[in-house]
Amino acid sequence: MSSDRIIQVERDILGKNDRLAADNRARFRADDVLAFNLVSSPGAGKTTLLARAVSELKDNCPIGVIEGDQQTSNDAERIRATGVPAVQVNTGKGCHLDAAMIGEAYDRLPRLNGGILFIENVGNLVCPAAFDLGEACKIVVLSTTEGEDKPLKYPNMFAVSSLMLINKIDLAPVLDFDLARTIEYARRVNPKIEVLTLSARTGEGFAAFYAWIRKRAEKARAASLSAVSA
Amino acid sequence: MSSDRIIQVERDILGKNDRLAADNRARFRADDVLAFNLVSSPGAGKTTLLARAVSELKDNCPIGVIEGDQQTSNDAERIRATGVPAVQVNTGKGCHLDAAMIGEAYDRLPRLNGGILFIENVGNLVCPAAFDLGEACKIVVLSTTEGEDKPLKYPNMFAVSSLMLINKIDLAPVLDFDLARTIEYARRVNPKIEVLTLSARTGEGFAAFYAWIRKRAEKARAASLSAVSA
Repeated sequence: MSSDRIIQVERDILGKNDRLAADNRARFRADDVLAFNLVSSPGAGKTTLLARAVSELKDNCPIGVIEGDQQTSNDAERIRATGVPAVQVNTGKGCHLDAAMIGEAYDRLPRLNGGILFIENVGNLVCPAAFDLGEACKIVVLSTTEGEDKPLKYPNMFAVSSLMLINKIDLAPVLDFDLARTIEYARRVNPKIEVLTLSARTGEGFAAFYAWIRKRAEKARAASLSAVSA
Repeated sequence: MSSDRIIQVERDILGKNDRLAADNRARFRADDVLAFNLVSSPGAGKTTLLARAVSELKDNCPIGVIEGDQQTSNDAERIRATGVPAVQVNTGKGCHLDAAMIGEAYDRLPRLNGGILFIENVGNLVCPAAFDLGEACKIVVLSTTEGEDKPLKYPNMFAVSSLMLINKIDLAPVLDFDLARTIEYARRVNPKIEVLTLSARTGEGFAAFYAWIRKRAEKARAASLSAVSA
């Protein structure tokens, strides 16, 4: 097969995905739902991070979670154990969630009006970068155990993310992890990326993460109000 | 685009890759080169592991390394610093190495006759599972920091690998890592997978890894001799 034909097929797939992502985004806006797309390597700690966050935030507003994995419903079960609704999407051989999967999974969640939808993507620092799901923004989780150079080696993912959460910060001293260098590398590929450090195991840094979410929610509401009054 | 058309395109891509992988495999056999395809999540420690292995093995036989990453030539430079030749392949937006890339990179290495070619794939537990590079076998590196459940959540990769190297075993006590459970999960998706534990940082477990490589080399040579005499 010619590489021109491969490129055309890729364009068709991404074009269709972008249209469905725009539909999702319109639905989230109509429902006043703030959607975050969490991306990372396998094992960066997204589910542990989310389980803690949703159990600490669930009394403030409606929360729902969509979990993506090739196989198993382990992650959705871990979220449900906190009392928050979660839908598992299994991608089989697939390496990322797409907008169609999110549209269908969102239908299966209870109404989240005025609340937050967390989407946990398949653990993969490459492919999910190319797929808009209709989220307000992507949050990339990098754990201290992965090393400082990941933003340079997987630049697309860090370029499309608004926030980098550096997880497992409690292990940083054991690992000689260089935080300043990691942030410098991330800003080299995305000068505007925001950075927070936390530990999903100890809870360190979560208050700042929640403050960041509140700020995002206020910004989204202000944008939505000005769109209405315009 | 219809999903039938997507499936046909995937088949075309994989079919072409398989033909080129067979060419690579024939070249490796003709050169008496044992090729290993190392796969893992980003940050599992493949490069640190390889840098130690090649510097400890390089006096025994010719060794070459092909390094895959989306961006940077950091890894090839780390290998070259040990005195072993390395070629960097940058995949750009791509999420895996393919057989064509390996054929071209192999041409750029010095002759490795009677030796070992290590291929370090792009850090990705999903996509590289589908792409044969012509290797003798895939070695999946899982680090203790990633958690026990990865073989169940990313089963394809563990199903196609002959050996699972559990890296960062020195951190296991800090992490409450459950080794027996991890092995049980890996064998659930691949009953024949072999398992070794090691620490690329401390060197623990490397002697057993080298013994495993020697056994593989003897097996490959015996198979090749019996093919000649048949």
